Amino acid sequence: MKSIVLIGTGNVATHLFKALSNFQDFRIIQVYNYNPESLAPFPNVPVTSNPEEIFKADIYLIAVKDDAISSVSQTIKAGEGLVLHTSGSVTLEALEKHRRTGVFYPLQTFSKGKDVDFKNIPVCIEAGNINDLEILENLAREVSHKVYHITSLQRKSLHLAAVFVSNFVNHLYTEGEQICKQNDIPFEILLPLIEETAHKVTQMSPADAQTGPAKRNDKEVINAHLEQLNEQQQKIYSLLTTSIQKLHGKEL
Amino acid sequence: MKSIVLIGTGNVATHLFKALSNFQDFRIIQVYNYNPESLAPFPNVPVTSNPEEIFKADIYLIAVKDDAISSVSQTIKAGEGLVLHTSGSVTLEALEKHRRTGVFYPLQTFSKGKDVDFKNIPVCIEAGNINDLEILENLAREVSHKVYHITSLQRKSLHLAAVFVSNFVNHLYTEGEQICKQNDIPFEILLPLIEETAHKVTQMSPADAQTGPAKRNDKEVINAHLEQLNEQQQKIYSLLTTSIQKLHGKEL
Repeated sequence: MKSIVLIGTGNVATHLFKALSNFQDFRIIQVYNYNPESLAPFPNVPVTSNPEEIFKADIYLIAVKDDAISSVSQTIKAGEGLVLHTSGSVTLEALEKHRRTGVFYPLQTFSKGKDVDFKNIPVCIEAGNINDLEILENLAREVSHKVYHITSLQRKSLHLAAVFVSNFVNHLYTEGEQICKQNDIPFEILLPLIEETAHKVTQMSPADAQTGPAKRNDKEVINAHLEQLNEQQQKIYSLLTTSIQKLHGKEL
Repeated sequence: MKSIVLIGTGNVATHLFKALSNFQDFRIIQVYNYNPESLAPFPNVPVTSNPEEIFKADIYLIAVKDDAISSVSQTIKAGEGLVLHTSGSVTLEALEKHRRTGVFYPLQTFSKGKDVDFKNIPVCIEAGNINDLEILENLAREVSHKVYHITSLQRKSLHLAAVFVSNFVNHLYTEGEQICKQNDIPFEILLPLIEETAHKVTQMSPADAQTGPAKRNDKEVINAHLEQLNEQQQKIYSLLTTSIQKLHGKEL
């Protein structure tokens, strides 16, 4: 059995805590966070807000905000323990104070209060040395069916790709919702389309799945659409239309 | 029992044909298309490619490309029959040659060879007069649980919103796939995130679901991301980041 101190109490930490609660090979023996109030939702496990009181453990799992990883890592006396962070955009070097380091990056959007099935979340792992990679692989396989070896450089690109397919996509949903609101249309009408559009790319490449007026170069529809939009929406519409046409070899 | 002549043999026509095959109150009595070869995949039903041979029917359901609707509609001698089209971006007036007109617009992305459950597809209906709206409502309820009364003006906006949440979203998936390819990362790592991002907005407003470096105004991550992108991708990244920040009240 390997012992884990979980560092952090945000969305990722909370979901990891739940996912790691029922396993025998790895056990969370303590949760640490600088703010004592944030520790209240972690019952049945020792907690501390004093870095001096952090237990000795096999693994220190840092699940805090990106810009806090380096400084939090400095406060931990890990000794021979393996220190991991969970960020998509922070390199392994942020932990360089420590002898044994690694990354355990679950690629998913976490919200407080919304359960996720961790078994289906891809976990991207990286380690400073090959022996630790094996420990990380075992830990990752405890919580997920989907484990990938990803370098710091690849992880940086993956995080960027995730911004496109999740954060930016969500913003387009928001624009769609605004257009509906302005015209007294219930946004729910769009939900089956949204889900099918996402599901489709699990079965075919998004490049092949592209449809719509931009792909067809249907100028009449494109111009009619532009007339209905405000300035900011027009910019988005024009740029994405141009981009689709460049990719599919058509000119505006 | 009301008889239907289905006009068109594309994706929408094919899926409608399947959805309407098993009902008693409405029955497709013939499929028409100008190209005889396209009629081959419609067995067990009379077909014709000669507009003079179109049967007399209660309903003529035109499921052809947007820019062909008006001209195809001219070739039909509908008499007292109800003439419908299935387009999101064409007004009711495109059918104005006919006495009784309506719109039956299923809001979904259809691909040949990929089955869809029509029961969950929202069908947006509109009719030239109130009695025909009732017939349309009955027809729509035969194939779907989700029926909405939507005016031509609303339908135009709905179609535009659909471009944002489906066509443009799919293009962002494509950009994500390209970033993965360029860095030897399997695109499948992103699929659970893509599906969860879509699923999330069935439970909360996309405006509330927004996360990411743009929302947090994390300039360090934003600048690092921009450095990794080509010119076209940088334009998209900058514009959508600005747009998210305007919406959420932050300045770059």
